[in-house]
Amino acid sequence: MAKLPLYAAGITASFTILLTTAAAQDAALLKQAQELFQPLPKDMATAEFPITRERVELGRSLFFDPRLTIDANMSCSSCHQPAFYGTDALPKAIGVKQRPHSRHVPTNLNAGTSFVIHWRGDRTDLEDQVFQALTSPITSGQPDEKAVIDRLARIPGYAPLFKAAFLDEPQPMTLRNIAKAVGAYERTLVTPSPFDAYLAGNQEALSPAARAGLAKFINTGCVTCHNGVGIGGGMYQKFGVVEDYWKATGSDPIDRGHADVTKDPADLYVFRVASLRNVAMTPPYFHDGSVATLPEAVKVMARVQLGVTLSDADTRDIVAFLENLTGQLPANFATAPVLPSGAAAPAK
Amino acid sequence: MAKLPLYAAGITASFTILLTTAAAQDAALLKQAQELFQPLPKDMATAEFPITRERVELGRSLFFDPRLTIDANMSCSSCHQPAFYGTDALPKAIGVKQRPHSRHVPTNLNAGTSFVIHWRGDRTDLEDQVFQALTSPITSGQPDEKAVIDRLARIPGYAPLFKAAFLDEPQPMTLRNIAKAVGAYERTLVTPSPFDAYLAGNQEALSPAARAGLAKFINTGCVTCHNGVGIGGGMYQKFGVVEDYWKATGSDPIDRGHADVTKDPADLYVFRVASLRNVAMTPPYFHDGSVATLPEAVKVMARVQLGVTLSDADTRDIVAFLENLTGQLPANFATAPVLPSGAAAPAK
Repeated sequence: MAKLPLYAAGITASFTILLTTAAAQDAALLKQAQELFQPLPKDMATAEFPITRERVELGRSLFFDPRLTIDANMSCSSCHQPAFYGTDALPKAIGVKQRPHSRHVPTNLNAGTSFVIHWRGDRTDLEDQVFQALTSPITSGQPDEKAVIDRLARIPGYAPLFKAAFLDEPQPMTLRNIAKAVGAYERTLVTPSPFDAYLAGNQEALSPAARAGLAKFINTGCVTCHNGVGIGGGMYQKFGVVEDYWKATGSDPIDRGHADVTKDPADLYVFRVASLRNVAMTPPYFHDGSVATLPEAVKVMARVQLGVTLSDADTRDIVAFLENLTGQLPANFATAPVLPSGAAAPAK
Repeated sequence: MAKLPLYAAGITASFTILLTTAAAQDAALLKQAQELFQPLPKDMATAEFPITRERVELGRSLFFDPRLTIDANMSCSSCHQPAFYGTDALPKAIGVKQRPHSRHVPTNLNAGTSFVIHWRGDRTDLEDQVFQALTSPITSGQPDEKAVIDRLARIPGYAPLFKAAFLDEPQPMTLRNIAKAVGAYERTLVTPSPFDAYLAGNQEALSPAARAGLAKFINTGCVTCHNGVGIGGGMYQKFGVVEDYWKATGSDPIDRGHADVTKDPADLYVFRVASLRNVAMTPPYFHDGSVATLPEAVKVMARVQLGVTLSDADTRDIVAFLENLTGQLPANFATAPVLPSGAAAPAK
């Protein structure tokens, strides 16, 4: 280094102290984050719901196949679209025969990290969700198991796929096994993000603005509910702790949430805390899609949950953090499978 | 070679003669095929409709984006599904608001090789088809250009894509330009098949059964209409030259075809000859999806167009040939794009 005049040496010294302080703060933030959040696992298999190659292959075909539903024109992927990160960009989804869903489509990406499924927690796990969807009047329109299985039995290519996925079962083509196969497929759909690289120790994976946003996300109190591997998805919470949510969102009708499932007044306006993974890719927001943009959604949450009015600058930083929860689409979701060939319905 | 007993040498000599004859027949078949058919070009750009990278990128996003249609729940890809090689497996497609289409979905793969678009030839080219679809009551449901453009203008990510695709245009976001962009994208969707490798001179690209089927396809007379680069798609023809088509297909109602477009009685029951590329992947068959399987469709065509009753063995060979018209799905069709983010409709 060239010899410095005295005043410049003073500045350099101060700068070094500042740098040291900043580095210490960055290190402290990382440590804090590593205590509050966990990186995504490589998949979401459990002892109860193992993943096999054959089940994933079958489940992926079933996920994209509209021939299971009443008019053979809607598949799981009609609402859980790859192009929208497993959502449909609508406030509330439209089901078979134009029947309206009551709530916004939650993404199926990383969904196996959630402790229950659906906004109101009325599905125990992915497999339960799929099983019930297969004969739901809105999602499927099929009256019973026989109607669904008859459709599949007409398509010659499916029998060997079921056989391979469920060895030793004499009649593997059942709703339970469809649910297990689609569940196995969905349990592979993880989207590691820059934030996961950060949690693994690479501080540079987040920009300074995103790190500032992370600190504000923690210090404002968002992290009270949005934590863990899903940055949410781990508990129930009332929507509107400080203030009725519909006054901020304009929601109409007002959804009573988990109380309609449990019939317990203590669960009024209680919902599963949403995972924030890929949140920047899945507008509109909340259980009814009542808020169109992420900055607005962040402000609403701070206000009604925490009684905090966020400045535009703080909102921008938090959004910068949330944008780093976006991962790459899994290849086996972004790319449609070629489905077993066969006409969808009796031809005449 | 070991020394052969006399009788074995005799057999070997006969076998050699047989082989020579077979080789000569194979060579003659290839030569005949090269006169009747052409391999796919690398894309389907024309002087009028050039392909640029920017137009293809924009067009691909628009093709997969449901936010253009009235309820924001159907895109081009809802009926032209990658998983079914650009079709939907239904006899007749279901449009917006559950409105029925009158005819079966033709695949958009290789569609730029056809001389006109749609079963009745009422669209001059891909761009005309897209342009008319954008305000069709069944395909889109949008009342006019303004309604479609308002949707796109709400999604911030689209403006730069239009700007890049249509340089020097002050207001590039128009229905005409949507049509040009989607058309440019579709003109990239080619699916070279084993038959194209065969036409290029590689006889082994087709199995002996498929080559036998090709010979029968030619000699039975199928090739009279199904020829050229699309193996069809190059002319109009009456459906039911020898016999009313609906007696063989069970079609109900009876479609009058091109006559309803031209009002000319000479065009009664006349349709565009369908391209047979990927035909094995796109059941059910014909303009109304009235026949569920490919072997049955082949038999119906031989009967009503040519007055020929095909044996099961001949049908099997022809189907073996047709199966070799299946190409690989183009990567930019099989894989969904990540769409510009934005809620589909006003949030409240």
